Amino acid sequence: MENNPFAERRARVAAALAARKLDALLVAFSPNLRYLSGFTGSNASLLILPGQSILFTDPRYQIQAAQECTSEECTSEECTSEECTSEECTSEESSCKVRIVKGPLVLDVLATLQKLGALRTGYEPARMTCDFYDALKSRLPLRASLEPVHGWIEELRTIKSEAEIALIRQSVATNSRAFEQTLRRVKAGMKESDLAAELEYRMRRLGAEKPAFETIVATGVRSALPHAQPTHARLAAGDLVVIDMGAFENGYASDMTRMLSVGPPSAKVKRMYRAVLEAQLAGIDAVRPGITAARIDTVTRKVLKGYGLDKAFTHSTGHGLGLEIHEPPRLGKRDLTRLQPGMAITIEPGVYVEGFGGIRIEDTVLVTASGCEILTPTPKDLFVV
Amino acid sequence: MENNPFAERRARVAAALAARKLDALLVAFSPNLRYLSGFTGSNASLLILPGQSILFTDPRYQIQAAQECTSEECTSEECTSEECTSEECTSEESSCKVRIVKGPLVLDVLATLQKLGALRTGYEPARMTCDFYDALKSRLPLRASLEPVHGWIEELRTIKSEAEIALIRQSVATNSRAFEQTLRRVKAGMKESDLAAELEYRMRRLGAEKPAFETIVATGVRSALPHAQPTHARLAAGDLVVIDMGAFENGYASDMTRMLSVGPPSAKVKRMYRAVLEAQLAGIDAVRPGITAARIDTVTRKVLKGYGLDKAFTHSTGHGLGLEIHEPPRLGKRDLTRLQPGMAITIEPGVYVEGFGGIRIEDTVLVTASGCEILTPTPKDLFVV
Repeated sequence: MENNPFAERRARVAAALAARKLDALLVAFSPNLRYLSGFTGSNASLLILPGQSILFTDPRYQIQAAQECTSEECTSEECTSEECTSEECTSEESSCKVRIVKGPLVLDVLATLQKLGALRTGYEPARMTCDFYDALKSRLPLRASLEPVHGWIEELRTIKSEAEIALIRQSVATNSRAFEQTLRRVKAGMKESDLAAELEYRMRRLGAEKPAFETIVATGVRSALPHAQPTHARLAAGDLVVIDMGAFENGYASDMTRMLSVGPPSAKVKRMYRAVLEAQLAGIDAVRPGITAARIDTVTRKVLKGYGLDKAFTHSTGHGLGLEIHEPPRLGKRDLTRLQPGMAITIEPGVYVEGFGGIRIEDTVLVTASGCEILTPTPKDLFVV
Repeated sequence: MENNPFAERRARVAAALAARKLDALLVAFSPNLRYLSGFTGSNASLLILPGQSILFTDPRYQIQAAQECTSEECTSEECTSEECTSEECTSEESSCKVRIVKGPLVLDVLATLQKLGALRTGYEPARMTCDFYDALKSRLPLRASLEPVHGWIEELRTIKSEAEIALIRQSVATNSRAFEQTLRRVKAGMKESDLAAELEYRMRRLGAEKPAFETIVATGVRSALPHAQPTHARLAAGDLVVIDMGAFENGYASDMTRMLSVGPPSAKVKRMYRAVLEAQLAGIDAVRPGITAARIDTVTRKVLKGYGLDKAFTHSTGHGLGLEIHEPPRLGKRDLTRLQPGMAITIEPGVYVEGFGGIRIEDTVLVTASGCEILTPTPKDLFVV
């Protein structure tokens, strides 16, 4: 079935509609839509009903949608986007029909819901704008309703298939290779922004589509900003440098943080580094099926507490990743999700001291039946440049 | 006032609240929030009230928010994020206070609205998720309401200040320079993806933060996909290659499309190129204050009709750009916005023939008092490589 994972995923969703008292599910959030259809364009809505699925997009994506959704546009003569009732149109249950729509997609989505007699349609309130909802709601036929669906597709997405794991491995490998190729070129005097440019260039040359997020290169006191954007500041002797980078390759994310020291690190830096590394290894060590995401966070925090650094750890320990760089579960205090084999997550404790600097160490790991596998191959040294 | 354009913009919004029967405006959409506060982080809400503004963000951005919003966090001893009524806190009307919030921002936003007695609060339904809205709505105090505000900040953003125009010029210059540096290196056999990587690397080395969108490099028949993502396909003799690229520099976008021909172009390609170029020049020629966005679209379409190519022009003629790559106005049939001096827009007609290829030519132009200025300096030849 991995030959057409999209049809299989849609079939799972379609089969579960009735149990949720739904006639249809409307998906417009790009990663969820891609997961269920393969479509990678930026503007689309997907309707899943028992026995059929329809992707609505605009004319820019006419050719691409037909290619990616591995189905032809409906060619029935009676078929217009508003009223297609032909036999041909519903015969191929496993394929996703594509409807090319000029103007707002919402009108065609509504017309189709009405035509197909869907009364209760699920939508994703965490992913839909109020405007899109209002446009739908105000034109719904009598007796029809929109029913909020929270995190259903995201939950399916947390457990990666073998094929998805292979793609994440590939993305992680590319990301690490880009880091290693760049590391050879790093020296004092280099700009943060040029280092970031080099990392991203290497990623792309190695096969990535793009960075999974804005590459963080933060030197000196700026390393204390957990989400620093690269500036034109230059790496100077004595600086700590945080590099947090990830790639999207074939749509799947990787995520890694490593630290450089420009010249030999001070004793204070070494101690902080040891603390964070110990916390990170303890976190990884705790990962196994059945443990809660929150518990992993407690484990890393406890290690930092032993060093008096827990207050300097101002974010959560990690997050799931896949078609998005941040996905459930969240490895933080409040997430009681139990880890399961097939989840891909990051483990990334960090400490941040304003006016001094910050240290974070991050790997992408895969939850396995017996514990976890660290996917990131890059050594976890404090690299001295 | 350009020294603190953010305060000036907030003051304009605050002054116009009463006319819209609002006590406060809530802005959470990142480009709007950046326009009004300078904050560049990914998670924040901004409340604008008469005489004061408050930015809510999470602990990751504690240091950055204080720096970017050019104000200190409230240091009044009585100040907690829920109840700050101290004199100090409201004294500096022109500055934006920063509140660091652990957990969902929405609770602190609500508490502040209640504290400050705001009854009618504007929100941006085109930019807010249903979940965020529901979280606000369900906890609103009695008598308080949320009022939809459509495109107010976006409309302010359409007219660029001198400082913004300077930033767009810079972004356009970087983008063109990256193209020209890369052009020297292009040859048959190169992969689309490597060409895209090179373009983006050059942009970044020249000062851009990142590409303004996924760089399009589409060769051969793939050039007929208006929004093609680069693949590992190689440039081959006889190919047409579309390059559509843009940079974000200091937050501001540029956008340009140019065409390459691998080897000498055929007569058919030359004719198509001439048609698109003529349409693009006619579009630019028509740009002046007072003309509608739709009219520019009609002008380019008419030229293509003269070549029998109007049906192959499957998108609109252009769009505004600034803090986003696509902003109002939209130069398409339905947008009756009248162009005004200070608007930065693209002019980018294109024709797409499935199985053959596509041609698009695009400049970024600035509407001026007397017509327009083409900001893009790159020649509009069909570059033969």
